[in-house]
Amino acid sequence: MTRLEKQLQFIIEIDKVKNIFRQTYLADGKRKENDAEHSWHIALMAVLLKEYVQEEVDVLKVMIMVLIHDLVEIDAGDTYAYDEVGAATKRDREAAAAERIFGLLPEDQGSYFKDLWEEFEAYESADAKFAHLLDNFQPLLLNDASGGKSWTEHKVHKEQIYKRNEKIEETSKSVWKQMQNIIDAHIEKGNVIP
Amino acid sequence: MTRLEKQLQFIIEIDKVKNIFRQTYLADGKRKENDAEHSWHIALMAVLLKEYVQEEVDVLKVMIMVLIHDLVEIDAGDTYAYDEVGAATKRDREAAAAERIFGLLPEDQGSYFKDLWEEFEAYESADAKFAHLLDNFQPLLLNDASGGKSWTEHKVHKEQIYKRNEKIEETSKSVWKQMQNIIDAHIEKGNVIP
Repeated sequence: MTRLEKQLQFIIEIDKVKNIFRQTYLADGKRKENDAEHSWHIALMAVLLKEYVQEEVDVLKVMIMVLIHDLVEIDAGDTYAYDEVGAATKRDREAAAAERIFGLLPEDQGSYFKDLWEEFEAYESADAKFAHLLDNFQPLLLNDASGGKSWTEHKVHKEQIYKRNEKIEETSKSVWKQMQNIIDAHIEKGNVIP
Repeated sequence: MTRLEKQLQFIIEIDKVKNIFRQTYLADGKRKENDAEHSWHIALMAVLLKEYVQEEVDVLKVMIMVLIHDLVEIDAGDTYAYDEVGAATKRDREAAAAERIFGLLPEDQGSYFKDLWEEFEAYESADAKFAHLLDNFQPLLLNDASGGKSWTEHKVHKEQIYKRNEKIEETSKSVWKQMQNIIDAHIEKGNVIP
């Protein structure tokens, strides 16, 4: 197989991520969004919100990171943020998926994407922390826009949201403040359990 | 309204692009794809295929360009590639949409996006030519994967595809060769009219 053929095979394979649906509703509340839509949204948010990040970040790298971060779900499926049973096996399922999917690419590009995915998962570098901020902030904005629909359906508690977002403040105080305001408003409305 | 509030208003507004459906089917042929999915796909393709572009390109800029290039369709709707009636009013409808949608952002970011969109539309710079290559190549790959479904439905002629892609060869000979192979194969199968 030529280099271009490998790349095209990968490009067609990842089309499947458009059929991996998340638990978050679109802003209009009419249907859930899929991984491709979510990734598109947060890649653009990276451009707009980088000015609020306290550490130095490489926006190009963060954009590529968020565009590929959910590809493993083609094999491993979407694990809801507050699904503890799914979380226990998530890492193994996703690591096997990364091997297969990034393995379709020419070696240099496959390793580059796999390393970026590992960096995202490790959640330690400034770039990975910004990527996670985007990955968490976007569904919160959509939940807010759709009247807290997904929180209500899953009976989500404030402490679950806080636990999931415990590193946001060290990445961006401004964004964390905005997130807290949104969470507080939905506790008041009864959509999030205090 | 604070700067962050303007940015968040824009981020929620552009969620609507997830409901703008195109004429291209997903690779599995089961449903048509929307603008957000399409934009996600071609932003990643920019990273993978830049090595085939003959001129120097700025990948970060191209990625942002393709992530925003269809936002005007929130107001203007999708105009099918081979719809001559729609094409006559497309430019005016889209220019008004760009004013409104990018106008939601803080002035600096709004102008930056609007300029990028204008550069894309002008189709003259190396970056814009690469963005158009991606914008045209991706639906061709999906059409190929789905058995030429969209071409058959719209009774598309070879000369229409060639006209639309007349600048591809000067951007990338390798990609143009691949596109020609795909078109030829679908002429042979009777999906594209010679």
